[in-house]
Formats: sequence, C-alpha cells, structure tokens
Amino acid sequence: MTVTLALDAMGGDKGPLMVLSGAEMALKKNPALNFLLYGCVDTLEEGIKNLPFMAHNLNKKIRIIPTTEVVTNDMKLTAALRARNSSMWQAVKSVADEETQAVVSAGNTGAYMALSKILLKSLDGVDRPAIPAVIPSFNKPIIMLDLGANLECSPENLVQFSLMGEEFARQLLGVQNPTIGLLNVGKEELKGHAELHKAAYMLRAIPEINFHGFVEGDDIAKGTVDVVVTDGFSGNISLKTMEGTATLIRNYLHEALSSTWRGKLGFLVAKPAFDRLRKQFDPRLYNGAVFLGLKKIAVKSHGGTDPVGFANAIGVAARMVEHNFSAHVQQRVDLLKNNTASDIELKPTKAMV
Amino acid sequence: MTVTLALDAMGGDKGPLMVLSGAEMALKKNPALNFLLYGCVDTLEEGIKNLPFMAHNLNKKIRIIPTTEVVTNDMKLTAALRARNSSMWQAVKSVADEETQAVVSAGNTGAYMALSKILLKSLDGVDRPAIPAVIPSFNKPIIMLDLGANLECSPENLVQFSLMGEEFARQLLGVQNPTIGLLNVGKEELKGHAELHKAAYMLRAIPEINFHGFVEGDDIAKGTVDVVVTDGFSGNISLKTMEGTATLIRNYLHEALSSTWRGKLGFLVAKPAFDRLRKQFDPRLYNGAVFLGLKKIAVKSHGGTDPVGFANAIGVAARMVEHNFSAHVQQRVDLLKNNTASDIELKPTKAMV
Repeated sequence: MTVTLALDAMGGDKGPLMVLSGAEMALKKNPALNFLLYGCVDTLEEGIKNLPFMAHNLNKKIRIIPTTEVVTNDMKLTAALRARNSSMWQAVKSVADEETQAVVSAGNTGAYMALSKILLKSLDGVDRPAIPAVIPSFNKPIIMLDLGANLECSPENLVQFSLMGEEFARQLLGVQNPTIGLLNVGKEELKGHAELHKAAYMLRAIPEINFHGFVEGDDIAKGTVDVVVTDGFSGNISLKTMEGTATLIRNYLHEALSSTWRGKLGFLVAKPAFDRLRKQFDPRLYNGAVFLGLKKIAVKSHGGTDPVGFANAIGVAARMVEHNFSAHVQQRVDLLKNNTASDIELKPTKAMV
Repeated sequence: MTVTLALDAMGGDKGPLMVLSGAEMALKKNPALNFLLYGCVDTLEEGIKNLPFMAHNLNKKIRIIPTTEVVTNDMKLTAALRARNSSMWQAVKSVADEETQAVVSAGNTGAYMALSKILLKSLDGVDRPAIPAVIPSFNKPIIMLDLGANLECSPENLVQFSLMGEEFARQLLGVQNPTIGLLNVGKEELKGHAELHKAAYMLRAIPEINFHGFVEGDDIAKGTVDVVVTDGFSGNISLKTMEGTATLIRNYLHEALSSTWRGKLGFLVAKPAFDRLRKQFDPRLYNGAVFLGLKKIAVKSHGGTDPVGFANAIGVAARMVEHNFSAHVQQRVDLLKNNTASDIELKPTKAMV
C-alpha cells in the first residue's frame, strides 16, 4: 500500500539532516513510502545529494515543499500558531488537506499538539487528545498515556484515554485484547482520588474492554497490563523517572565495571550479553508517539533522536495509516455513547494511602 | 547519649523475630540504645532467648511491654484507631508520654501515620505531616517527599514539605545547605499547575533556604537537588516507578548474563563489581522514614524489610533523637511566620507541557 507522509524537516534538535537520514532509512525498509519534505529548500537539496538512496528517489518518491519559518523549541505557543509558513504548520496542514496521509515531526511538542488539534480536529466524543509512549516492560512493550498533553484530567478524559490507548496497543503491538490499568497509589478500590474511582467505575461498565483495575508505579515495568492510563502530570513524571533511573543504573554499572581489572575483563567477556541488553532498552526503537484522538495521523518523534529513531517514528506513522487507525479509535470511543455510568457522583476524598 | 526507643514488635510482614534481630543488630552497633518492645510477651521472650546479645542485655537495656492487639495491614483506619492496646498504639503512646524518645514501626503506614498525628501532634505551622524517602542518586543519596501521606497538596503544604525535607537532609545526610526542587513536568517557570507556581513563588521569598526551582522526573536520579518536593500522589508513583525500573533492569541483566556461557563467565569474573553495585542500591540501607512535621520522632520502616533494614530504621530514629530533630524542624517551619508571599493569587492553568 502506497503511503504518503509529510515530514517536518526543520523539527528536532539535530536538524534537517537527521530527518533526511531517517527518511532514507525508512525508505530503504519500506519502498512503498512517499515523502513530502517541508523546510528550507537549499539545506534539503544539499542534504539529499549526500544521501545516495534519497537522491536516487528524488522526483519519484520525494518532494521538497519550501517553507520559510521554523517553530523553535522555546517559541511561545501563540507565536507558533501564527507562523503559518513554518515547516510544522505546512506539514500538518498537508494532512488536513489530504495531500498526505500522516505527518511526522520531532519539533516543539506543545506547538505540534496544538496545531494538530486545530488542523486535524478531534474525533467525535474525544474531549482532549493524548500522547502515549511505548515502554519496555518485562517480556513485552506496553503503552502508557497521557505523557504530558493534559496536566489535569477528568474521569471522562481518563476513560477516553483508556479506549484510545487500548486501540493503539492493538494496532501497534498486535495485542488482541489489551488489558487496561489506571495508575494509582494502591491496587485496592478505595485508594487514591475520587476522579480515579469514578473512572474505574465507568470503565467497569464497558463490557467490550479488558479493564484490569488500578495499578501502581512498579506495575509499569512489570508489564502487569498492556495499557497504563494516567493524567499528563503523573505520566510525564513517571516516564522521566524511568529514564532517569535507567541512566543512573547504567552509569553505576559502567563505573563498577571500569574501575577494576576484573570488572573490565568480565565486561569484555560478557560484551555480547551487554550489547543485547542495550539493544532491548534502546529508546530509539520505542520512538514515535501517535497523537491519540485526532481524525488524522500525527506522529511525534523525540526531539533529540537520531536517524534510526526518526525512521522508527516514520514506521509507526506508516503502520497507523495502513491500519486505518483513526477510524478504529473512533469505533472504540463510540463505545461510550450509551455509557450511563458517568452519571454517578462520587464525593471527593483526600484519603491517606 | 543514651537513647530509649519504642519498637512496635508486631509490625512488619516478617513478624516479631525480624524486629528482634534488627534491634539486636542496632544494639551491637550502638550500645547506648535502650528498647521498650511492645508486643506479645511469649513470642518476644522466646525470641530473645535465641538471640545471645539481646538475651545478655535483657533486664538492662530491653523491657518487654505486653500488648494484646495487633494492627494488621488490611485493617481499616477506624478499627486501628480503636485498638488502644495494640503494640502500635502503645509504642507511639510511650513517646507522647515521654517514656521513650522515638518509636519505630514496620506496620500499617496509614494507621501508624494517623496514630502518630493524634498522639504526637503536629508542629506549630505544619498543616499535614509528610513521609520522606531516602533515594540513591548519582554520587549521593537525596530526600524525596511526600511519599503518600497526602494525595492532594496546597502550595502551602508543598512549602512546608520543602522546609521539613530540607532539615531532614541536613540532619540525616549531613548536607549543610540542601538545595530544594519542586517536581514538575518542565523546568521553565510557566510549566505545570498553578499550585506549583504559587509554591515556587513562596519558596523564592524565603532567603534562608536554597531553592533551586522546578525539577523533572529524571532529575531525581541525577541528584540535581538534595530535596525533591511533590504531592503524595506523584511521589508515590515516582518512587514505585523507580523501584519497578530497577527491578526490570536487574532481571534483564540477570537474563542476559545467564543465558550464554560468555555471559556467565563474564559475570563470574566481574562478580566483585556486581556485588559492590548491588550494595550501593541495597534498599535496606535506605530504610527508615521519619514522619516529618510531628512534635516527636516516629520512624516508619518498610513492611517487608529484614533485620538489616530494620536496624537501619532504628539507626535513623536514634540519630534524629540525638540531633534534637523536631526542634530544628520547628525552627525551619517558623521561617514561614512572616512570609507574606502566600497572599498572591495565581489563576489556575491547564497549560500544555
């Protein structure tokens, strides 16, 4: 299936050449891809010359669309939304105009999400789109959301996130009947905020889904459920805590193994095992977050990623297009249409853990 | 300095023998300790017979106080508060009555915190006590709070936590002028909830402290600040995420190193380095959380700890008594008396990250 993707060539900390190399990698892997590259013509043309596979496909599979503005990471949202000739704005717009089927950007997350909401519109019944992440856990990757688009969430938001995350797990990870868990400070029904109690009550009332109940912070890495649902504040902190902990352990391990000759020798002998381990946790392989809840596909790449990671994000976008993802999400969200569980009132608690 | 501690011998998943062995270890290390052991006389007397050092000190440094009730982990708070002849109730009461100088329990956290608040009273100017944890970070341990006593926190709560956590870092870790960071979804001033903005504004108005600003989830393990302050919901999730991630990496590492002969051999050669690493992250060495904001000292041990961990919690309690900890915390909280920064109004935001 031919898939045409818009790439924001000016987004990401490493600039257009990273995006170009990522596109080249993705194209080698999947020749059915076509790209519209939005950005500075001179830079892109010069860059493509140095990438033989891209250069060879120029005029056939790649078109450069010149744009004059760039949405930077420190730009205010209002300024980003005014920059109509930015690579980001034009790339997202091309999806709205059905020139392309999905957009990938490694640029300013807030601006990208806001633009996508405005230009691509939310699905019916979705109050706010969410940002998911794919996370390594014991024996399988899982989905966690929201990762920062929504700091405060109503029970209704959390229920919508659950349905959207569940469909993302199905399409991206190939899990048939994904289990859903609400992140909380305890597994017992009475633990946590009233909002969580209400969300759990509403989820239990949807027979079509596999709701597990509450999960705790350590259940993420355990892989207790396929989809961990939380508000954007806790989600962001949890994800970054994970990254920080992994880096800390890697640093300690490196120090321990490089400070004595026995450590150094042992590391050399076991190097293939360490290499395998590094690969399992390689964040580039988990790169590519679909903005969930939009009518069309927008994929966010990490700003700091390299071509391998960007190619992975392109792969996620292509997969979502092939699977007709947005229509599937709409079907799942429609399950809420006749859900009357949201009528219950729960009085707020400030319960102790 | 002679220190007399009350031990809740019936608290903890492993029962009175764990508490006894922990007490024996602590006593060997610090002969200036005296214990009042609250619990079932028969079990304790029988247990002490099998611990030569304890048995030798019986009648000199250890007294058993018989209690008939036990606060279990699944007990409702109301029931726990009615159990006046429980080992927990009596142990906490002995501190209130000044028979002992501090209490250590590995029992039901919610009940223990509630009892401590009722019997030991909050310091002047402290609205709610908080639970801190000591966490390994790059090159030094740090303090994080709240770890679950307060799910929702006002700016004023967060400011009080900051001052209490700062004093805990000074007394426990020996940091002279601890830096304080508020956990948020970004470092920039405009990121996150309005509550956090107000708390930051109030903290900046206290010249006597070293307020760093906002920190993110990965700053915990980086050791960016000495004290990470957050609400109990995010704190609980962050701490458990950390534990889960560490376990996941350990499991993967174990699998990688045990699945090939090269891995196994490399592990054997580098074993001393791995042992050192394991020791650095040994959670038992970080065990012992002082309930911050009370007029007297109550220390919570992890429920699942072993004698080494419990001895560590006893050591924390003794240190806090020796340092006259509560009086120092009162002095820090008194810094807020003339703080007028709390008068500002900040309008709520639902800002995107």
